[in-house]
Amino acid sequence: MANKHRHKPRPLFAEIRKRAKKAGQMPGTPTYTGDKSTTLPTITVLNYNVDHCELKKGHQLDEVLDTTLVNGITWVNLDGLSDTALVSNLAKRFHLHPLTVEDILNVDQRPKVEEFEGYVFITLKILMAEDNLTPASTKQLSLILGKDFVISFQETNSTIFDAFLSRIQVDPNQRVRQQGSDYLAYRLIDIVVDQYFVVLETLGDQIEILEQRIITNATPKNARTIYRVKQDLLVLRKAIWPMREALGHLMHGEDNLITKFTRVYLRDVYDHTLQAIDALETFRDMLASMLDMYLSSLTNRMNEIMKTLTIITTIFIPITSIASIYGMNFANMPGLQWRYGFTGVMIVMVLIAILMMIYFRKMKWV
Amino acid sequence: MANKHRHKPRPLFAEIRKRAKKAGQMPGTPTYTGDKSTTLPTITVLNYNVDHCELKKGHQLDEVLDTTLVNGITWVNLDGLSDTALVSNLAKRFHLHPLTVEDILNVDQRPKVEEFEGYVFITLKILMAEDNLTPASTKQLSLILGKDFVISFQETNSTIFDAFLSRIQVDPNQRVRQQGSDYLAYRLIDIVVDQYFVVLETLGDQIEILEQRIITNATPKNARTIYRVKQDLLVLRKAIWPMREALGHLMHGEDNLITKFTRVYLRDVYDHTLQAIDALETFRDMLASMLDMYLSSLTNRMNEIMKTLTIITTIFIPITSIASIYGMNFANMPGLQWRYGFTGVMIVMVLIAILMMIYFRKMKWV
Amino acid sequence: MANKHRHKPRPLFAEIRKRAKKAGQMPGTPTYTGDKSTTLPTITVLNYNVDHCELKKGHQLDEVLDTTLVNGITWVNLDGLSDTALVSNLAKRFHLHPLTVEDILNVDQRPKVEEFEGYVFITLKILMAEDNLTPASTKQLSLILGKDFVISFQETNSTIFDAFLSRIQVDPNQRVRQQGSDYLAYRLIDIVVDQYFVVLETLGDQIEILEQRIITNATPKNARTIYRVKQDLLVLRKAIWPMREALGHLMHGEDNLITKFTRVYLRDVYDHTLQAIDALETFRDMLASMLDMYLSSLTNRMNEIMKTLTIITTIFIPITSIASIYGMNFANMPGLQWRYGFTGVMIVMVLIAILMMIYFRKMKWV
Amino acid sequence: MANKHRHKPRPLFAEIRKRAKKAGQMPGTPTYTGDKSTTLPTITVLNYNVDHCELKKGHQLDEVLDTTLVNGITWVNLDGLSDTALVSNLAKRFHLHPLTVEDILNVDQRPKVEEFEGYVFITLKILMAEDNLTPASTKQLSLILGKDFVISFQETNSTIFDAFLSRIQVDPNQRVRQQGSDYLAYRLIDIVVDQYFVVLETLGDQIEILEQRIITNATPKNARTIYRVKQDLLVLRKAIWPMREALGHLMHGEDNLITKFTRVYLRDVYDHTLQAIDALETFRDMLASMLDMYLSSLTNRMNEIMKTLTIITTIFIPITSIASIYGMNFANMPGLQWRYGFTGVMIVMVLIAILMMIYFRKMKWV
Amino acid sequence: MANKHRHKPRPLFAEIRKRAKKAGQMPGTPTYTGDKSTTLPTITVLNYNVDHCELKKGHQLDEVLDTTLVNGITWVNLDGLSDTALVSNLAKRFHLHPLTVEDILNVDQRPKVEEFEGYVFITLKILMAEDNLTPASTKQLSLILGKDFVISFQETNSTIFDAFLSRIQVDPNQRVRQQGSDYLAYRLIDIVVDQYFVVLETLGDQIEILEQRIITNATPKNARTIYRVKQDLLVLRKAIWPMREALGHLMHGEDNLITKFTRVYLRDVYDHTLQAIDALETFRDMLASMLDMYLSSLTNRMNEIMKTLTIITTIFIPITSIASIYGMNFANMPGLQWRYGFTGVMIVMVLIAILMMIYFRKMKWV
Repeated sequence: MANKHRHKPRPLFAEIRKRAKKAGQMPGTPTYTGDKSTTLPTITVLNYNVDHCELKKGHQLDEVLDTTLVNGITWVNLDGLSDTALVSNLAKRFHLHPLTVEDILNVDQRPKVEEFEGYVFITLKILMAEDNLTPASTKQLSLILGKDFVISFQETNSTIFDAFLSRIQVDPNQRVRQQGSDYLAYRLIDIVVDQYFVVLETLGDQIEILEQRIITNATPKNARTIYRVKQDLLVLRKAIWPMREALGHLMHGEDNLITKFTRVYLRDVYDHTLQAIDALETFRDMLASMLDMYLSSLTNRMNEIMKTLTIITTIFIPITSIASIYGMNFANMPGLQWRYGFTGVMIVMVLIAILMMIYFRKMKWV
Repeated sequence: MANKHRHKPRPLFAEIRKRAKKAGQMPGTPTYTGDKSTTLPTITVLNYNVDHCELKKGHQLDEVLDTTLVNGITWVNLDGLSDTALVSNLAKRFHLHPLTVEDILNVDQRPKVEEFEGYVFITLKILMAEDNLTPASTKQLSLILGKDFVISFQETNSTIFDAFLSRIQVDPNQRVRQQGSDYLAYRLIDIVVDQYFVVLETLGDQIEILEQRIITNATPKNARTIYRVKQDLLVLRKAIWPMREALGHLMHGEDNLITKFTRVYLRDVYDHTLQAIDALETFRDMLASMLDMYLSSLTNRMNEIMKTLTIITTIFIPITSIASIYGMNFANMPGLQWRYGFTGVMIVMVLIAILMMIYFRKMKWV
Repeated sequence: MANKHRHKPRPLFAEIRKRAKKAGQMPGTPTYTGDKSTTLPTITVLNYNVDHCELKKGHQLDEVLDTTLVNGITWVNLDGLSDTALVSNLAKRFHLHPLTVEDILNVDQRPKVEEFEGYVFITLKILMAEDNLTPASTKQLSLILGKDFVISFQETNSTIFDAFLSRIQVDPNQRVRQQGSDYLAYRLIDIVVDQYFVVLETLGDQIEILEQRIITNATPKNARTIYRVKQDLLVLRKAIWPMREALGHLMHGEDNLITKFTRVYLRDVYDHTLQAIDALETFRDMLASMLDMYLSSLTNRMNEIMKTLTIITTIFIPITSIASIYGMNFANMPGLQWRYGFTGVMIVMVLIAILMMIYFRKMKWV
Repeated sequence: MANKHRHKPRPLFAEIRKRAKKAGQMPGTPTYTGDKSTTLPTITVLNYNVDHCELKKGHQLDEVLDTTLVNGITWVNLDGLSDTALVSNLAKRFHLHPLTVEDILNVDQRPKVEEFEGYVFITLKILMAEDNLTPASTKQLSLILGKDFVISFQETNSTIFDAFLSRIQVDPNQRVRQQGSDYLAYRLIDIVVDQYFVVLETLGDQIEILEQRIITNATPKNARTIYRVKQDLLVLRKAIWPMREALGHLMHGEDNLITKFTRVYLRDVYDHTLQAIDALETFRDMLASMLDMYLSSLTNRMNEIMKTLTIITTIFIPITSIASIYGMNFANMPGLQWRYGFTGVMIVMVLIAILMMIYFRKMKWV
Repeated sequence: MANKHRHKPRPLFAEIRKRAKKAGQMPGTPTYTGDKSTTLPTITVLNYNVDHCELKKGHQLDEVLDTTLVNGITWVNLDGLSDTALVSNLAKRFHLHPLTVEDILNVDQRPKVEEFEGYVFITLKILMAEDNLTPASTKQLSLILGKDFVISFQETNSTIFDAFLSRIQVDPNQRVRQQGSDYLAYRLIDIVVDQYFVVLETLGDQIEILEQRIITNATPKNARTIYRVKQDLLVLRKAIWPMREALGHLMHGEDNLITKFTRVYLRDVYDHTLQAIDALETFRDMLASMLDMYLSSLTNRMNEIMKTLTIITTIFIPITSIASIYGMNFANMPGLQWRYGFTGVMIVMVLIAILMMIYFRKMKWV
């Protein structure tokens, strides 16, 4: 089971490998570094204000974006980045910097917030929590926050924003309908960060089970599981730690795109990130303690084994020795013919055993 | 005993689990994440100034708050947060931000201080020290510090402020009666931080006993106790460490709610927090040293066991060998018929034993 | 001896225990948390300027302070804090803040420097170096630095300032006679910090002896000593580390009490504190290295023991086996009647032993 | 194979050794500290603007530089530094500071960015990834960024910039043709940093293989490989870590040489450096975990061995003892003549074996 | 050899001991804390400008300093500090602060830079690299940088500046002849820092040899060498680390004594210090890795030993057991008289041995 997990491409190295492939290219070259998917990328355009809300879905940019937009907020969401041309066109329409396009397509970014002329570029990691074996898989989400638009580029077709999307459409009283694009961007970040806790929960459960097992009966399999969970923590750390700085930058940034109203909410999601980091650090400390305990239980077991061996050996070896002596074939051995010879030797043997037992008890081995 | 402790819901993971359940909700949604208690939340309203002091208790907001308040400080205390509507109403009456309400009800906050329009929001952890087995349980306290009011939201019905409450009522010369709401908030924080030392004392006692045991006789049970206390320290760290930053923020904050007079006192409680953090770090270092010592004593014991085994074995195995040789049934064995054969062999055996003992003494094993 | 040390109240925990007892009290309540001593506290008042110097000693405040003071510097020193009323009266006369009084009496403060209206409050730890077993005992010294006075509150009756006191009286050319109260305060701090090096020397000696022992012959007692010295280091760290920040604050503080002249001297004592901290860190690193070395020597010794056991066993066990085979009582055993049977078997046995020895030599065990 | 690696000059120490040789020289003395190569250093001069591009190659300065330069950017690249005079002449022509010349020739610099009168001096490390055994070899690259020129000094003749060079020549629409010297310098840095990921990939592959081996079957060779990779990481850390500060300095520097346009690109390469550092730290954590796992697997194996020994020994030693007893030659031994004597003893022996097995099963050893 | 090293006074503790002796003295008391040497301190005065250069040597201050100085830079160098009066007189003539004199004589300073009225005081450590056994010995150098003079106080008579001194005299074109006193001071610091790399080289060589030994054959002596080199590193760290801060302070200081010209050179020596610190940290990491490897090789060897023991024991013990059984003297033992009894038993024994070998091979022990 643990081995099966190993056969999957390891996210840590996949990232470096992809970057290595980019070496030598010109900066700003739009190259998609993620997995090629067979499904067509889907574009979703939501155009809304307090009174009005309209949703369009499609695979072509012209299909969904070439409409008269109401005076309000436009949210463009792209699921899947394999169609590089599509991303480039979308970027061109919103006047994005070539480096932004490159970063969107290079799905191995460190989470960060960068200000460009006319927009803020935000890169996050969506944590996937599909099954128990591999909680540590991440997908990239890039957000473009402009004056009256937000564009979200998702590495894969995820359902993370679906519930939020329908809520906006259905309910005009939603706060997001009354606020600007900055609040929309905040909401998307918030949903991503909330998801972290789901993954952390899965991991926490695994750690708890592992803890129980190590306390009751430590096996080499536990060591491997500790090792695996540690590697998973590394992946999560890489996704969550840089968020702290990025969100702090967003919160305290001086650009006019983010209102004072939204900043209060950003502080909230920043707090959640700190909480997630706290949890990660706690997990790490716990795993370190568990490893200590596992190792000490190994040594303990060794002691138990050695004690048993020593007790048995030190009782029976002297007895065997004495018996061997009286088993020699010398013609002239005293005591062999004596009537109580055998009884005497037997008593000596029992005495030796008793003395040994007393010694072991004194040493607290028994 | 240690196992019994494990069956309780672990605070570390409970927290993440609760946050995970919130994932997908709208920000500002008031959702209580604590344990549902069966008892009704109690509201206590204390309205006082230098001359006057009036206390009201009840389960309904209108019962206790719909009275003419004297020109002075109002302290509203809520014990228990399970009635979400009650909290929302109270918040509405004091114009609290939706995020504040969410944070009050989400009892898994990191200790923090946040400034909002018209009030300061403070979140702390009350450490519970009920019994020796589980010192590491925390309950949340949220404080709202306004111009002439303080609202305290307690996760559970605790008696931590009872003595203080009666003292205010009884004695008009109490400094708190003469000062503003900021001094009242300071006093509440001070009481909470003082409580930390009670819990740290309990933990310190456990560590001291553990130390004695490890020095005199290290057992695997000690390792488990070290592990458990370490986990408890993690809980305390999560409660106390962020206090440092939060109180520093409160102390140096630029809002007008806190007078210069009170800032001196806040510096004092800040110092106490540093002292508590010092104690935690000391505990951690001690536990690490204890684990080192436990492990070294394990190896020592192994050495002791191995020495015994080796001494006994290396003395008796050669003797047995020689005896076996003379126990062979060869027709033609020299010495068997010799008169001093047996005596000679016995002397050789004793010599071997003596030489071995000399060697062991030289190696400082005996 | 090590055990005897354990029976003394451990400073680390004593501190927390005392603070725990204070929980629930009003801030600014003057409560003495130190050991109750039976001797009366002594007040020493030294009033001096360049021309004049007068010393008064007594147990009552009125005795010693109700005199016409010359126009100069007044140094009030209190040995012993068990008389809470006396401290309060003294504080009242110099208009000290209630929190200052509380901090003076609570002898478990973290070293710190705090500015109050009209004076600076300084808390330090005096390290006691009475005997070799317990170098890590600290006593609190609180200093009040006012415009023309310095008050020093000592937890116990120590002789640390005696030599300095007589030097001031005797020699009018002493720099302290020509400078203000800030220089006097500096001198007191300087004497305390100089004392640290005496204690560090004692500790350094212990570590050096310990090092020699571990290099020549590691015993479990060494591990316990390492553990004990580590605990002592924790106490020293708690006393010395915060001094860095406190003195830095004093040195760079903006209050007018400290002249540019004295700041140069404060920089000097600050440097000494850094030196003491360096020494502590070096000690800590050395102890960590020693523990590593102790553990590796344990494993080494285990290897030695195992080697001996293995060599003896693997040489004699095959021999015994062969001998046992020829000791069987089968009627029909080949070779028993053969003339060179015994000699042949003996040669085989010797060959086995030689082969084994060659193998051991190849493995570098012998 | 691992040993072969050891025979190469170790970059870590080579560096110090070279610096040691410089001790006592005057500052600014141009001394080349790299390996002497037999090939002649090559100078490449590229002079270009949007319309025009001219390349000259040669071994003499006058050959390649004494031409009329078009009004544009000049990039002078020097492959190989063994000709000290050549470097000095080149430096003189561009008015470089003597310390700059010294730093260029001393190929053991820490990566850094320094501002001088009229130019910025940048030192980087090019990581070489030629073969699998020694990924951790670095070569120095020094860049001089002037108003309309960039000079690049390479320690050895590398092909790292070749592709870039031809692209500039071929394609006038390349952004670099339209931008200033700062953009050219950025591009060179970018190419160097991109190369890091190729080396990190090689290292990542090695770590992944190592991981597989340790999980399936830990051998002492693994420990040596962990050790070797750790040493390699140290080399990479020394090359990459200081880049962070250097690039940050370049990015936020106040000199006019770097345009706002290029700063956006510098931020991008800065991000890549952070990513490389992240990867290094991840590798380090992984190696630490692997070592833990390796050690725990050693102890595990020891336990396995000891269990086998103990089981066999404790079953057969008592049996041998009993057999020896009945092999004694006493004339008067009870039971020897008894009809079921042998059968009885055999039953006792089997019972002992069964009891032992039950005990082992209870202890979970079998 | 390692033991011999131990008998030398250990620099780490010597320092504290000396400081401890100073406890209780007045600040500014000139007390020499170094080793008393028998040779007379030598004063060297070099007075130079671009045109002129004059050198005087002597043991009396008046001999060498009471001459008409040309309008230029004066460098006063004092070799040996045992003549306290001489130092005091020299200090008086240049109006040095009493604390400066104290710091010059107290040769256990932390490297630092302090600004005084009219001069800058710089304290450094000269590392001595005389022999291989004790690379970690440091001597103090104090520099006074005034407007037109530099005074250097050396703890002992070292030859470190000799080459530089003659170069100044001989060559009027030396840059130092054309620059101010700040450049002279820089040169002295530069020479000291260059010397560090010589010592680091010695240490690096030792570490490299140690590494080879641990990889090929780990012995307890290696552990002791690791321990000793670690202690040496501690000494170097104490000498070099504070240099970083001190030089940074000197470089960025606001006093007018240091020209912009010289600051560029100070940045260079600052860089060298960073490089030395990098090397120290690398050494430390390498030693930590070596210790890990040493410990793992110990455990490995233990495994090897245990395997041998287990294989031999588990093969021969059952054989001995069976042989003993057939060696019993029961009258009624089946098979003894059987013709193929002996052969059958022998076959059983060989089968047991073969089965055991198969088991061991399966467990990968053989």
